[in-house]
Amino acid sequence: MTNDTAAGTRGPYAKGVRRRREILDKTLDVVASRGIDGTSLRAIGEAIGVSHAALTHYFDSREALLVEVLRERDVESTRRVQGIDGVLERMTAAADDNAKVPGLVTLYTNMLATAVEPGNDVSREFFVERFESGRATLARELREQLEASGRHSDTDLELVGSLIMAAFDGLQVQWLLDRRIDIAGTLALLQRLL
Amino acid sequence: MTNDTAAGTRGPYAKGVRRRREILDKTLDVVASRGIDGTSLRAIGEAIGVSHAALTHYFDSREALLVEVLRERDVESTRRVQGIDGVLERMTAAADDNAKVPGLVTLYTNMLATAVEPGNDVSREFFVERFESGRATLARELREQLEASGRHSDTDLELVGSLIMAAFDGLQVQWLLDRRIDIAGTLALLQRLL
Repeated sequence: MTNDTAAGTRGPYAKGVRRRREILDKTLDVVASRGIDGTSLRAIGEAIGVSHAALTHYFDSREALLVEVLRERDVESTRRVQGIDGVLERMTAAADDNAKVPGLVTLYTNMLATAVEPGNDVSREFFVERFESGRATLARELREQLEASGRHSDTDLELVGSLIMAAFDGLQVQWLLDRRIDIAGTLALLQRLL
Repeated sequence: MTNDTAAGTRGPYAKGVRRRREILDKTLDVVASRGIDGTSLRAIGEAIGVSHAALTHYFDSREALLVEVLRERDVESTRRVQGIDGVLERMTAAADDNAKVPGLVTLYTNMLATAVEPGNDVSREFFVERFESGRATLARELREQLEASGRHSDTDLELVGSLIMAAFDGLQVQWLLDRRIDIAGTLALLQRLL
């Protein structure tokens, strides 16, 4: 899903990539300001000023469009925090970013609930893959971080990765319901597990 | 929401309490086996063999009914694990119980997503109160557990409570998507924070 190179080139393909990304950005804006509950693909098209035909040219369904908004955002978020030292520091920075767009966190929560209901294969596949690769990436990064600091840990780092993702998701939902929730301060507790 | 005393008495009030609880149990059964996506209050009534009139006598809306299923289940779950020593041991036992009813965890996830969407005040109030009292209860129990063992901790136990609830919820969702997720093993990591 890295469109950077393509977006830098010319021609109809690059135009399509730009157009697709524009739709994703606009969709996030609309979702962030109005919510998505009950909105059809047609209603999203009307809200972002894109014809239904154009929308279905790029996305097979409402579910597919919303999953792609999340995927795009994951790519951006990873890019933004990649220069930060420390796994939990990066997660905290990502949480800070998300806190600026509560509608995104609401969308994420909503699509996760969609994914666990039978029959929603597009979102299910997205989240299964997201958690699997997230756990593996966190475990690898934690291992590298420990090695770089000359420390050793007997802890199963895949479990820690799973825990970090769970805590991150769970805290964000608590924060949506109560803005006093201190996501950064709570995630920082996990430093002691390492 | 403790109906025990009332359920043990006689007369029309007790009958109403029993009837209400029966509806909640049947709803959970139906939700657990068929999911709730898109099901109206009327459809739930048909599925559990209760007339729409009877259903609306006890519950104002589909949202209210489903929230009460969760509330009832919370009461039962708390009762079942209350004899177990140790905060994380109780949480693990509760997770084991939930693992027997994936449909319940799906319902929980779905209603949590409902609660964070604007306009769904019944579920929002339920979850805000649930997290608030959950954090406070966990903090108190952790404090008691530390005192009983003669230990002291400088950790903010409200944050730990928040983290335990977040990890619990987040891990259950990961488990719904991938049954290999080891909820008990991952929650056990949190012992080290105490």
